[in-house]
Amino acid sequence: MTYCAGILVQDGLVMIADTRTNAGLDDVSTFRKLHVFSTPGERTFGLMTAGNLSVTQSVVSLLHEGLANPETGEMDTLLNATTMFRAAQLVGRAIRAVREMDGDAMKEAGVKFDVSMLFGGQIKGQPMRLFMVYGAGNFIECGMDAPFLQIGEHKYGKPILDRAVTYKTHLYDALKVGLISMDSTMRSNLGVGLPIDLIVLRRDVAEPELNRRIEAGEPYFHDLRERWSAALRAAHTAIPRPPYAPPTG
Amino acid sequence: MTYCAGILVQDGLVMIADTRTNAGLDDVSTFRKLHVFSTPGERTFGLMTAGNLSVTQSVVSLLHEGLANPETGEMDTLLNATTMFRAAQLVGRAIRAVREMDGDAMKEAGVKFDVSMLFGGQIKGQPMRLFMVYGAGNFIECGMDAPFLQIGEHKYGKPILDRAVTYKTHLYDALKVGLISMDSTMRSNLGVGLPIDLIVLRRDVAEPELNRRIEAGEPYFHDLRERWSAALRAAHTAIPRPPYAPPTG
Repeated sequence: MTYCAGILVQDGLVMIADTRTNAGLDDVSTFRKLHVFSTPGERTFGLMTAGNLSVTQSVVSLLHEGLANPETGEMDTLLNATTMFRAAQLVGRAIRAVREMDGDAMKEAGVKFDVSMLFGGQIKGQPMRLFMVYGAGNFIECGMDAPFLQIGEHKYGKPILDRAVTYKTHLYDALKVGLISMDSTMRSNLGVGLPIDLIVLRRDVAEPELNRRIEAGEPYFHDLRERWSAALRAAHTAIPRPPYAPPTG
Repeated sequence: MTYCAGILVQDGLVMIADTRTNAGLDDVSTFRKLHVFSTPGERTFGLMTAGNLSVTQSVVSLLHEGLANPETGEMDTLLNATTMFRAAQLVGRAIRAVREMDGDAMKEAGVKFDVSMLFGGQIKGQPMRLFMVYGAGNFIECGMDAPFLQIGEHKYGKPILDRAVTYKTHLYDALKVGLISMDSTMRSNLGVGLPIDLIVLRRDVAEPELNRRIEAGEPYFHDLRERWSAALRAAHTAIPRPPYAPPTG
């Protein structure tokens, strides 16, 4: 399983991904799902992937190598895309190219071609954007009303994002709430686990302000988990019991 | 969609179900998903249903009418089952009977035979038990280590149950946490909505101590939602921001 969240607020973009993969419960590994593509000072993109690992790795490899453009004869890459929209289209094209290569054989083998991606970032002088790209290569864009997108095991961690994140949220509060969302997911689903990879892109900076891996035992994340647990315990304890009980209850 | 949770603690059983059904987003209705079968003072069962409404309603109707027992020639009903285990088997048999009647035609029409149920309660002098019955009629039983079961849209509301409910939890605290779990689900999924039906069965009482519907605007549930929101806001606000930010951050 996988959990990735991208949060796009006024001051920038946070991308957070776990690293656990599993082929069944008895084959659990650690793989990077957050990939950074950058020409420092000019553009930085983050790409987070969920779904079949052979597909997502092939997509990432293709994006590094570039896809031949039949019209120009040139190689299209993320680093020469002229806009974020065209870069997102290229991610979609890469997914379709992998489906063309492997899709039929996977289907025959009974393996689902199942993949989704979050792709975000900024080209200098252009808007910062965040997209969710589906397995058919089509995509949607994150807006200001619900300034986050999620892929993978997204439901456990959605309530806190729904409640706590708005477009005006401070960039590092967005990171904090994203880590709480990741914590909720890890607690309820063993398929999502440490370490956690994250990047923070400040708007109009065009290189990562932060590019970090949180390993087990990292003091801040450990403290966040403890505090969040204690606060939830205090929160539900402080709510009075339902007054519906009969007198003997 | 649907969300139902059953919580089996030391002092008894709580069952909570929403009432929203939808065939697409433009056909939203209210249907009861929590059904009580009782011979007061002797036995009480709660049955909560998720999945295709035509299937779940037929199962409930069959359980009221009884299923013919080919060996004895008698009608087997929940009210004459000799144990909770046999009663749960009867729920499974009713699901299989509906599949036999409607399954093929539904498949031809491209409609999934998709159903799951929580069935719990007690026959006087026997243990109180809680089961989750699957679409194939097989079932699992709730244990003391994770004293709750959920059906339907269960992921949004699972983190709070994971954290806050143990077998020793007070019966009305279990109800309170169940309502928080329902609130989290309703906030993140429009397919789950008010009113909420609930029953509380105290162990060894064999009739419902509480059988209630919570409508929109009910003061306690409204207050619980407000308090929980405020407490979550306070909780994440109180956690310090990640110390990873660069000096300029």
